[in-house]
Amino acid sequence: MTARVVVKKFGGTSVGDVGRIRNAARLVADHIRKTGDKVVVVVSAMSGETNRLISLAKSCTPNPSPRELDVMVSTGEQVTIALMAMALEDIGIGAKSFTAQQAQISTDKNFTKAQIRDIDAANLAKAIQSGLTPVVAGFQGIDEDGDITTLGRGGSDITAVAVAAALKADACYIYTDVRGVYSTDPRICSNAKLLPQVCHEEMLEMASLGAKVLHPRSVYFAMAYNIPLAVLSTFEPDKGVTWIVKEEELMEKPIVTGVTYRTDEAKITISKMPTEPSALSKVFSALADANVYIDMITQTGFDGKRTDVSFTVLDEDSHKALKIVNDLIPQLRAEGASCDRNIAKVSVVGVGMKYHTGVAGKAFEALAQEGIEIQMISTSEIKISVLVPKKYWEVAVRSLHSAFETDREPLVEAAA
Amino acid sequence: MTARVVVKKFGGTSVGDVGRIRNAARLVADHIRKTGDKVVVVVSAMSGETNRLISLAKSCTPNPSPRELDVMVSTGEQVTIALMAMALEDIGIGAKSFTAQQAQISTDKNFTKAQIRDIDAANLAKAIQSGLTPVVAGFQGIDEDGDITTLGRGGSDITAVAVAAALKADACYIYTDVRGVYSTDPRICSNAKLLPQVCHEEMLEMASLGAKVLHPRSVYFAMAYNIPLAVLSTFEPDKGVTWIVKEEELMEKPIVTGVTYRTDEAKITISKMPTEPSALSKVFSALADANVYIDMITQTGFDGKRTDVSFTVLDEDSHKALKIVNDLIPQLRAEGASCDRNIAKVSVVGVGMKYHTGVAGKAFEALAQEGIEIQMISTSEIKISVLVPKKYWEVAVRSLHSAFETDREPLVEAAA
Repeated sequence: MTARVVVKKFGGTSVGDVGRIRNAARLVADHIRKTGDKVVVVVSAMSGETNRLISLAKSCTPNPSPRELDVMVSTGEQVTIALMAMALEDIGIGAKSFTAQQAQISTDKNFTKAQIRDIDAANLAKAIQSGLTPVVAGFQGIDEDGDITTLGRGGSDITAVAVAAALKADACYIYTDVRGVYSTDPRICSNAKLLPQVCHEEMLEMASLGAKVLHPRSVYFAMAYNIPLAVLSTFEPDKGVTWIVKEEELMEKPIVTGVTYRTDEAKITISKMPTEPSALSKVFSALADANVYIDMITQTGFDGKRTDVSFTVLDEDSHKALKIVNDLIPQLRAEGASCDRNIAKVSVVGVGMKYHTGVAGKAFEALAQEGIEIQMISTSEIKISVLVPKKYWEVAVRSLHSAFETDREPLVEAAA
Repeated sequence: MTARVVVKKFGGTSVGDVGRIRNAARLVADHIRKTGDKVVVVVSAMSGETNRLISLAKSCTPNPSPRELDVMVSTGEQVTIALMAMALEDIGIGAKSFTAQQAQISTDKNFTKAQIRDIDAANLAKAIQSGLTPVVAGFQGIDEDGDITTLGRGGSDITAVAVAAALKADACYIYTDVRGVYSTDPRICSNAKLLPQVCHEEMLEMASLGAKVLHPRSVYFAMAYNIPLAVLSTFEPDKGVTWIVKEEELMEKPIVTGVTYRTDEAKITISKMPTEPSALSKVFSALADANVYIDMITQTGFDGKRTDVSFTVLDEDSHKALKIVNDLIPQLRAEGASCDRNIAKVSVVGVGMKYHTGVAGKAFEALAQEGIEIQMISTSEIKISVLVPKKYWEVAVRSLHSAFETDREPLVEAAA
């Protein structure tokens, strides 16, 4: 095949009803007719369908078996691949749908959160060579026993990039309901900028920090297999695009690329814990055993004997986490534990931080000027995160975005 | 395996919602606990689901590709197998769902009306041996290319009997929304009798004559592979059962087993057609080419040169059929053609007719006593069908049922 091969993935809202599926099909047809590229389409379930199926399962039994849940939930994408293939054929594009089984997407056996092991692209390549546009079910796979698995939320992004990698595709386009990746949330900052490029490391920090555009594993796959990855809007595909590229391919390197936030965490503090070598591991092992996801961890107030330890967990886990910690208090001989749910995390991200100093100082100053108290700080090579009182989170985002805004030329105006 | 193996099939209304699926699961669990039998469950899509999916496809494109339609429609049973497996596990019966692909149900490539070629029962047998109750998706299969196919309406009955044959099962139970096969429609005759036994030939005549209890191909399979087949109610499983058995296994052989009817046909008559050898084949070849299903055919009024030919077609095909015939009139040099939609077909069926004379006379007399004109007659070895004016169809059914009623002992009173 000398023609280019590209993968186009449409998420749940992009295929939310038949009209939207037909719209997505037209985008695919336009691309094929304009460029001569071979296109492989990857689709999610129609928005709401996965939740409907899970509710149906839970109305049958409170604890559905994960294997059977995956058999059920995977029907969501199976409906969409058929509709998308029909919509493509209806406008003159020969198409053929592929379940995960037919596309030979192999995963491990972890039902409901499986990971892709391998894709044998022979069937897809054969369809492409015979002039058909394959339409592949995202989010699902087949394990070594032929059982149906699903990849967990956001899994269709992973399918798309993994299919692109297996086909050695020239690019992977992720169509979603936003125009791309913004310098911050346009709903919070009216002068948020659409970023024409971000590098993988920045995208990973932004995704895990709450910018829910791409599943982090899809970014890892794109980085590992060197697949150019684009994010753009299904509804306004001409209004912008963000390419996720290697750091060395960035056209410019602003110090701060984006300001992100999350408001779904809570802070737990253990006060005056004696500093025994095993104390911290006891706490975090117990939390890990209970599947509590830990985000930031800080230790303060160390006086040689005792210390305060704070960490953040998902708000929904905070009761469970506090109970686990409280149960350990006697054993740890700490003074007590408390939970603060009125916090938000605000972060500045930028690969340029690697080469510039003074970012932290500038960030803290911006927050201080607004009178916002910083409760916790956590940093990585390309990120600074601070915990602030939840009521100030929008103010904090705007002040940080403004503080670093002048580093970058406005490229595309964000939607209001 | 020394334990008996039985197949239990639940149709769309029997699995119409989660409550009904749980009810069906309890029937399975009770059977297993009382008998020690190994049970294989076959399920249809939840009632209404197949139509919903077809409507969704047609809202996407007026002529969906049959391959993609099958990918879509097959999700209906996939949801039910998962729910049924969950419901069984919820009441302590280890279960495992099987799509057609996993159950290795091979079909030909006729999408939307495929026929089962073969079932490799190895996967099902393995599950049974490991103590699990397999739950198999009815109505669907996989062709030699790994494409998903469906068997057409009523196909889950065929799956059930084919699975029973592949497993050399001891019996196949078809659970439906009636208590079994009646001597006629209980809604028309309050003294309709539930038949404890009918033979395969009778069941085939009754099914094709409009008693919509079992798909004819499932009866053929049961006959060919010698699978005892039972029809009973999911909702009142203790209120009766009809076994479909070999003729020689019938405990008694009433002359007339049942009275059936259909009201969805129309009669087309070609008047004064010259009797050329090729005339009839021209007519019926043209109709076959247009996929018009022909039921009864009679030829009357032959005077040596010309004859009247009447035949019945499905009412929904009657306009198309009349047009085809009218187009042929000049070529046939017939006088003309007409269509009568005000007809109904009433039939008496019974394997005992093979050994008794006088059934036709008794039937015609019963109708004459009610002043019902007979417009057309068609007979087979075990069946007499007559066409009557549609407005009299209920009267005709009741009079025939009464005329032959005394031949049989009432066994189970029909529901009102």
